[in-house]
Amino acid sequence: MDTLSTNRAFGGTQGVYSHASTATGTDMTFSVFVPPHEPGAKLPVVWYLSGLTCTHANVTDKGEYRRACTELGLMLVAPDTSPRGDGVPDDPEGSYDFGLGAGFYVDATRAPFDQHYRMWTYVTEELPALVADRFPVDMARQGIMGHSMGGHGALTIGLRHPDRFRAVSAFAPIVAPSQVPWGRKALGGYLGDDAAAWRRHDAVALIEDGARVPALLVDQGAADQFLVEQLQPERLAKACADAGIDLTLRLQPGYDHSYYFISSFMADHLRWHAERLD
Amino acid sequence: MDTLSTNRAFGGTQGVYSHASTATGTDMTFSVFVPPHEPGAKLPVVWYLSGLTCTHANVTDKGEYRRACTELGLMLVAPDTSPRGDGVPDDPEGSYDFGLGAGFYVDATRAPFDQHYRMWTYVTEELPALVADRFPVDMARQGIMGHSMGGHGALTIGLRHPDRFRAVSAFAPIVAPSQVPWGRKALGGYLGDDAAAWRRHDAVALIEDGARVPALLVDQGAADQFLVEQLQPERLAKACADAGIDLTLRLQPGYDHSYYFISSFMADHLRWHAERLD
Repeated sequence: MDTLSTNRAFGGTQGVYSHASTATGTDMTFSVFVPPHEPGAKLPVVWYLSGLTCTHANVTDKGEYRRACTELGLMLVAPDTSPRGDGVPDDPEGSYDFGLGAGFYVDATRAPFDQHYRMWTYVTEELPALVADRFPVDMARQGIMGHSMGGHGALTIGLRHPDRFRAVSAFAPIVAPSQVPWGRKALGGYLGDDAAAWRRHDAVALIEDGARVPALLVDQGAADQFLVEQLQPERLAKACADAGIDLTLRLQPGYDHSYYFISSFMADHLRWHAERLD
Repeated sequence: MDTLSTNRAFGGTQGVYSHASTATGTDMTFSVFVPPHEPGAKLPVVWYLSGLTCTHANVTDKGEYRRACTELGLMLVAPDTSPRGDGVPDDPEGSYDFGLGAGFYVDATRAPFDQHYRMWTYVTEELPALVADRFPVDMARQGIMGHSMGGHGALTIGLRHPDRFRAVSAFAPIVAPSQVPWGRKALGGYLGDDAAAWRRHDAVALIEDGARVPALLVDQGAADQFLVEQLQPERLAKACADAGIDLTLRLQPGYDHSYYFISSFMADHLRWHAERLD
């Protein structure tokens, strides 16, 4: 693991790191904020998964999580959203919603993407092992959150690892990728027409198929330009109601899909995680 | 005035605007955060002046001021750092510390810079008039802060307008530009060898020459790479001690010159301003 930068911030350390990933076959960059802590302490950690077009840098620059992480004693880890580099295939049409910056937190099974686009394994296995090895983290106290495509990632990973993540939340998540254009393009492109695989990467389908978490917190901007076509939080509301999952879904008037929205509610989410990671 | 963007954030509105400036003879871009407020209310305002290489965008993205502004009921205005556009001369050598992004908050008197580089008039006269006209601001309650070159701007503008600004603070300011490489290059390049003009744009010299403010708050990172060569806060400490100005100078261990440093102490500064703008 190479340290690309470290900066003192809010009494802790904001670092950016790179390592050669065996999951993706590329170098991968991620950021970690470590709040001030006693020597030898092991800290609870929140994973933040980013949305389309983002890298670790968007939330690191604009997420405004460090004050709350310091106050609450939380680490925050932000991975990249796809493999990158020489030999990594992009969308042939160069669109923003497939390929680079759009890994969708799945392990691709379709060529040519199956060689490098293995973000599920990267985020659920390889990076946690690295973080556990190199940072002062208590892996018994983990939460996961994300934005948009990363909200999809947080929900699906949280639902499939109920014993690992004590808290799951999302900002403007893609809750039912099988049903919306972004998701159908990504799941089709990475997984082909394997209907069972699609359901394992669709939060609403996972709940319909029996996956459970105790509670979910979701914030959604009411002025989000992607609300109706891509996000459709009412599908999550219905699935949670049917399944008896305690969903707190807050429609925030006037807010859009940007980091202005995310940063406004970041501290709320981190407090919600901290309460569950005590 | 054209509205380039508005986004809901922390219950208020973060806007970015552009207008044709008569002071600089160019279009100028600036950002304004307006916190939630009662209809008809007039709000205190804090001006934030940015450092070398920056535009309005750096602090808007990374300054983490909106939560505190909302809690305290403060507007925050962030101008650009120089004129830009066709016909605006840059440093012939293209360096980062003169010309574009480096206006140093002076009205240049040397050709070819005297035509457009009129940031003193822009920041002290033209933009305040525009803001007073277009935003819900109480111009009897103004504070000013800045970073590095913008800390220099905040200190010199504050010292020369003691009746206008009730609060003045800075992050890692250039306190004595006449004495350090960044400042000597800029003041010489924009003002020539006019020693009296240099003193009017040098916070330490202004204090030596009798300028006064009731109090100053300055945070300085102890690990700032520019501390010894360019910033030299001990010069400000001596001038304030000699003049009886109540300077709070905090040397912050481990912090560098970046927005990780600024954002860590932004809320402290805004609270300090709010106390004085009541």
